Amino acid sequence: MFLTRSEYDRGVNTFSPEGRLFQVEYAIEAIKLGSTAVGLKTNHGVVLAVEKRITSPLLEPASVEKIMEIDTHIGCAMSGLIADARTLVEHARNETQHHRFSYNEPMSVESTTQALCDLALRFGEGDEESMSRPFGVSLLIAGHDEKGPCLYHTDPSGTFWQCDAKAIGSGSEGADTSLQESYNKEMTLEEAETLALSTLKQVMEEKVTASNVDIAKVAPVFHLYTPAEVEVVIGRL
Amino acid sequence: MFLTRSEYDRGVNTFSPEGRLFQVEYAIEAIKLGSTAVGLKTNHGVVLAVEKRITSPLLEPASVEKIMEIDTHIGCAMSGLIADARTLVEHARNETQHHRFSYNEPMSVESTTQALCDLALRFGEGDEESMSRPFGVSLLIAGHDEKGPCLYHTDPSGTFWQCDAKAIGSGSEGADTSLQESYNKEMTLEEAETLALSTLKQVMEEKVTASNVDIAKVAPVFHLYTPAEVEVVIGRL
Amino acid sequence: MFLTRSEYDRGVNTFSPEGRLFQVEYAIEAIKLGSTAVGLKTNHGVVLAVEKRITSPLLEPASVEKIMEIDTHIGCAMSGLIADARTLVEHARNETQHHRFSYNEPMSVESTTQALCDLALRFGEGDEESMSRPFGVSLLIAGHDEKGPCLYHTDPSGTFWQCDAKAIGSGSEGADTSLQESYNKEMTLEEAETLALSTLKQVMEEKVTASNVDIAKVAPVFHLYTPAEVEVVIGRL
Amino acid sequence: MFLTRSEYDRGVNTFSPEGRLFQVEYAIEAIKLGSTAVGLKTNHGVVLAVEKRITSPLLEPASVEKIMEIDTHIGCAMSGLIADARTLVEHARNETQHHRFSYNEPMSVESTTQALCDLALRFGEGDEESMSRPFGVSLLIAGHDEKGPCLYHTDPSGTFWQCDAKAIGSGSEGADTSLQESYNKEMTLEEAETLALSTLKQVMEEKVTASNVDIAKVAPVFHLYTPAEVEVVIGRL
Amino acid sequence: MFLTRSEYDRGVNTFSPEGRLFQVEYAIEAIKLGSTAVGLKTNHGVVLAVEKRITSPLLEPASVEKIMEIDTHIGCAMSGLIADARTLVEHARNETQHHRFSYNEPMSVESTTQALCDLALRFGEGDEESMSRPFGVSLLIAGHDEKGPCLYHTDPSGTFWQCDAKAIGSGSEGADTSLQESYNKEMTLEEAETLALSTLKQVMEEKVTASNVDIAKVAPVFHLYTPAEVEVVIGRL
Amino acid sequence: MFLTRSEYDRGVNTFSPEGRLFQVEYAIEAIKLGSTAVGLKTNHGVVLAVEKRITSPLLEPASVEKIMEIDTHIGCAMSGLIADARTLVEHARNETQHHRFSYNEPMSVESTTQALCDLALRFGEGDEESMSRPFGVSLLIAGHDEKGPCLYHTDPSGTFWQCDAKAIGSGSEGADTSLQESYNKEMTLEEAETLALSTLKQVMEEKVTASNVDIAKVAPVFHLYTPAEVEVVIGRL
Amino acid sequence: MFLTRSEYDRGVNTFSPEGRLFQVEYAIEAIKLGSTAVGLKTNHGVVLAVEKRITSPLLEPASVEKIMEIDTHIGCAMSGLIADARTLVEHARNETQHHRFSYNEPMSVESTTQALCDLALRFGEGDEESMSRPFGVSLLIAGHDEKGPCLYHTDPSGTFWQCDAKAIGSGSEGADTSLQESYNKEMTLEEAETLALSTLKQVMEEKVTASNVDIAKVAPVFHLYTPAEVEVVIGRL
Repeated sequence: MFLTRSEYDRGVNTFSPEGRLFQVEYAIEAIKLGSTAVGLKTNHGVVLAVEKRITSPLLEPASVEKIMEIDTHIGCAMSGLIADARTLVEHARNETQHHRFSYNEPMSVESTTQALCDLALRFGEGDEESMSRPFGVSLLIAGHDEKGPCLYHTDPSGTFWQCDAKAIGSGSEGADTSLQESYNKEMTLEEAETLALSTLKQVMEEKVTASNVDIAKVAPVFHLYTPAEVEVVIGRL
Repeated sequence: MFLTRSEYDRGVNTFSPEGRLFQVEYAIEAIKLGSTAVGLKTNHGVVLAVEKRITSPLLEPASVEKIMEIDTHIGCAMSGLIADARTLVEHARNETQHHRFSYNEPMSVESTTQALCDLALRFGEGDEESMSRPFGVSLLIAGHDEKGPCLYHTDPSGTFWQCDAKAIGSGSEGADTSLQESYNKEMTLEEAETLALSTLKQVMEEKVTASNVDIAKVAPVFHLYTPAEVEVVIGRL
Repeated sequence: MFLTRSEYDRGVNTFSPEGRLFQVEYAIEAIKLGSTAVGLKTNHGVVLAVEKRITSPLLEPASVEKIMEIDTHIGCAMSGLIADARTLVEHARNETQHHRFSYNEPMSVESTTQALCDLALRFGEGDEESMSRPFGVSLLIAGHDEKGPCLYHTDPSGTFWQCDAKAIGSGSEGADTSLQESYNKEMTLEEAETLALSTLKQVMEEKVTASNVDIAKVAPVFHLYTPAEVEVVIGRL
Repeated sequence: MFLTRSEYDRGVNTFSPEGRLFQVEYAIEAIKLGSTAVGLKTNHGVVLAVEKRITSPLLEPASVEKIMEIDTHIGCAMSGLIADARTLVEHARNETQHHRFSYNEPMSVESTTQALCDLALRFGEGDEESMSRPFGVSLLIAGHDEKGPCLYHTDPSGTFWQCDAKAIGSGSEGADTSLQESYNKEMTLEEAETLALSTLKQVMEEKVTASNVDIAKVAPVFHLYTPAEVEVVIGRL
Repeated sequence: MFLTRSEYDRGVNTFSPEGRLFQVEYAIEAIKLGSTAVGLKTNHGVVLAVEKRITSPLLEPASVEKIMEIDTHIGCAMSGLIADARTLVEHARNETQHHRFSYNEPMSVESTTQALCDLALRFGEGDEESMSRPFGVSLLIAGHDEKGPCLYHTDPSGTFWQCDAKAIGSGSEGADTSLQESYNKEMTLEEAETLALSTLKQVMEEKVTASNVDIAKVAPVFHLYTPAEVEVVIGRL
Repeated sequence: MFLTRSEYDRGVNTFSPEGRLFQVEYAIEAIKLGSTAVGLKTNHGVVLAVEKRITSPLLEPASVEKIMEIDTHIGCAMSGLIADARTLVEHARNETQHHRFSYNEPMSVESTTQALCDLALRFGEGDEESMSRPFGVSLLIAGHDEKGPCLYHTDPSGTFWQCDAKAIGSGSEGADTSLQESYNKEMTLEEAETLALSTLKQVMEEKVTASNVDIAKVAPVFHLYTPAEVEVVIGRL
Repeated sequence: MFLTRSEYDRGVNTFSPEGRLFQVEYAIEAIKLGSTAVGLKTNHGVVLAVEKRITSPLLEPASVEKIMEIDTHIGCAMSGLIADARTLVEHARNETQHHRFSYNEPMSVESTTQALCDLALRFGEGDEESMSRPFGVSLLIAGHDEKGPCLYHTDPSGTFWQCDAKAIGSGSEGADTSLQESYNKEMTLEEAETLALSTLKQVMEEKVTASNVDIAKVAPVFHLYTPAEVEVVIGRL
């Protein structure tokens, strides 16, 4: 009586008889092909760590940007299609800039996340900024505002959740299990750095080096670690 | 002579020969996959209670927002796609804000509900705010205006009904039966809190705790219960 | 040589080789699934009566609005998709308001009906107010203007007719036969009330009560009967 | 080598290999399902007569409007989809009003007919007034301007012809044959009335009465006959 | 490896693998179903002659307009869809009027022809004046400007050619052969009238009369022959 | 695993799995059906020569324009769909006019060619001037600017190349071979005229006459040869 | 359960169940058909070298532009569809011009690259500048700004990477291997020229000459080598 599943996944934004949106589910698959990223919240700040896949020794590691600053108090790690992520981040940067200009205060991390997700939800509608397909990217958004440090996780459906710790990308399943075992709310920022990197290490095929991972913190200001700072964390593993 | 049913459900907004709109019916299916929510109206105010599915211990329970404030005198509980619900709620917030600004008085609960449903009905029409598919979400809208406390139920077709008590989501069938047996119009607000939570308890697989349910009331002002306040209600079960 | 019938009914607004518009015909089917409504014109005013399907004892009967006021001198009863009907009624309200404002006099009932039908006809054209499919609703429009009382019947094709008495919805066939047998132009308003309700009674599966029917009159002003007034009419059956 | 005919008739406005436009041809079929209308031109004015199908004794005959005034010097009879005809007539009324306002003189009958046909030709182009399908209606346009009395026939392709006498609708074939036999240019207006009605009578299944036909003349002003005036013509048959 | 021919002709404006545009070719077929028209250029002016198909004796021959004036110095004969031709002619009239207004001189015949062809070429592009399909009409455009008399032939692809003599429509093949045999550049206007009509006569099934042909000349001003003038030419055959 | 080739060529502007654009390739086929054109650059100017297919002796040879002036210092020869070429040339004329007006100097030949190719590339995008399909035409653009004489070749993909000598159209393969054998950069303009015409002669089925070829030069001003001038070149063969 | 791969690659911008975008992948295939280009970054500047396919001896080698200047401090080499590349380069030129005008300083190389990639990502969205399909071109963008020399690689997905050395086009696989073996960061500009050309030589079928390769450097200003300068580099091989 119903069509088979395969016949519903062609429509960009159409419900299947069971109430599912297949294009969104497939975009979520795109993230499972992406590199792994990890985020941890502590009382002293939030740590982000990402795997960078350096396909050639002639590629500039620093240009494989998988952690980006949104505003001085907000940064994000991404997994999935990088060009899609850049569009979302650029949108968020405009929103936070505009907020500062209009209200003379930083935009809250949740409002910034909501603004990002609004854009992600609007795919297939022909707006100027929206895409004709779902954004194929997940973000871990780390920030610090008047409510203190916070970490958000977004997915291609435009949904977001607040987390203590979260992994995304191809190694997310194993990484999430590790985090649940080892994370505790009273960690220091240093312990969080170490846990983030050791979690990444478990799911990476290559040896961890200062050029194939990036680490950043928001504590309370966004800071992307220099290779030397990354080496220090690697040394602690 | 007619096409089979399966051939009509592809059109986003097309009648089948029997006069049915399948995409709307499938969006209603999306709600049957959602978590359960319950609403009860008393003479002293309205109570909303929702199940929250916490998939990981590292997820911040408070960020799984399934009850949201629309205005100081209106709140809503949702079941289905959260990102869709946020769009509807944001639309309703703008409408109530705009009403207060223009007329210097709160918008009535029915007008707010109608405004939400107008947006839901307009799917597939390429408007700025409308979606290219039906909104995959049902809402229980609790409010208090000059007519006293009131509770509305909306569905993806853009239809709404006023109710004394109503459940939505995956456990709605069992919950509605319970409500019809136990509800009476002369309940106190406290009795309503207890009935709402005991109804949810029956349809939830997990044990009820302060982190996997949310409770709110509009009496006459919207108030989301703190974990401590939720514990008090749990204690009465 | 021709396609089979089934292949023409997919186009939203396309003629079949026999000159038929199937989406409009299917929308008319949607009305056959709706609850029954009856209208009668007398020299003293027009009476509307509708069946209300109350699916749960916790549903507020008064919120299942199937008779709505358009202006003080015009009301309508509907059968089919309620959300569609609300859009048409809202459109008609704006038109009559605008007319009063511009010309300082009430809009005629025929002009109001024509405005409603213009919107219904324009489906599939991407206008701001129009729908991407036919409106799945029939209306009985009762009014009183300088030509005296009048009753109009509209259907999803945007066509309208003036009638002495008419039934729409799932029980319309039987109800129309009853009306043709019992109606006469010289009825009093009270006799019309009784005939409207007894006609509804014949086609309803449930016992008629003050909560599962609504009655209204335009004589010359729109008035929706209170439960007590409905009980009086029930008492006369 | 070519597609079969059936595969060309899906495109709203596409040529078949033989150079045919099937949607226009199917719209012409819609008219063959319509009631019959007849027009006759004399030196003293033009007569229009139409069959009205009264499906219920409770339907107001006067509201089944198949003859409509466009301006004081132009009227038309229609066959096919009534709602489509009303849109064309409304368009023509605006054009003639606008012409009077701009030039302080009545619009010529040919210009009015051309304006109507321009709208009919433009279907499928997404203009504000145009339809997404051909208009499923034929008109007989009767008028009187400085060139004297005139009668035009329009069809869904947007083509028009000037005629001495013409029938449209389901009985047009038989009616046209009768007209060719009995019409002559020197008829009086009274003879034309009689011939119009006797021609209709031949193709109608029911007995001709004052409520199932309408007659109008433009001589030189549009006048729709009252039931009493129709009775007089019936009496002459 | 390629699709069959039949699968390319569905696209309104798409090349087949051999580089052909089928919708344009099919529109050209529409002209082969049309009545025949003939044009001849002499040193003293241009003559146009067309066959008129009078399907009923009650049709006004003068209203079957197949020769139309564009400006005082330009006229055209058409074959194919009359409503399409009227749109092109109306466009050309506006262009020539606009030219006179802007430059205070008549528009050249070639520029007028180019303007017509620009509109014909633009089909399928959603412009205000353009059609969603090719124009199904060919024109013979006769004119007289500072370069002297001239005759253009246009087709549905938007291409035009300048000719000494040319026939279009269902009888064009035979008529073109006759013209090539009998035409010479030094003909008088009277000889051209006679050749035009005798050529038409050969390809018409009916006897030539003053009501089933039209003749016009541009010498140097457009003039449509009266029935009496046509009779004179018939008399010379 | 891939679709067959035939399934990709339907999309107007879609890559096949091998990275090909079939509609553009098919438009290139349209040119292989066109008449042949030849261009040669010398130090003293550029020569263009085209074959004209005169299908009837009554066709005005001068009106089969296959060489057109763009500006006083630029001309072009075309092969393929003439109406498409006229649109491109008209666009180029506007651009060069606009350039002269804005900068008071002639537009360079390369900029003019680029402007033409921008329009050709933009097909399928719904712009005002662009087409819904590729332009089915190739051009040889001859010009003379401050860099001296130059010759460009454009194709339907919007690509252009600068050449010393080039042939396009149905005979281009043979003609290009001849040109490569006989062309040298130090030719006089007269030698270039002779080579152009003798190359055309080889690929034409008919005898070369002053009415079935056109010749033009830009040296440094565009000049289309009169029949007498063409005869002189024919005489030199 | 899923569609086969072939059924997802038709949608211009749709995810397959594995989260892939086939039209983008096919556009990447278009580049594998293109000529090879190589870029190398040194501390003293960046070198670009491209293969030019000269299909005819009569083609002007200088007009086969595969290296283009964007601004005085930025140039790029391309592989794939030349007309697409020109559109991207033109867009980048406008952006850098506009930046200079607005801020009175050169635009950074990364911002220029991001602007190019934003346009590439936006395909299929109907914007004025964007295409209805992915841009079928890869670029090597060489520049010099306040951060010193830099080299970026872009692909049709709108993603970009910063590289020390990179090859694109049909010979990129072999060329990349060579570069990884021979490149070192401390090379002089002269050594980079030699390595670029020797790398190209390995993957070219023809003998390297001054007319079938182009070389350019940004050191710190863009300079395209003259044939004589290219000869010098060839001499060093």
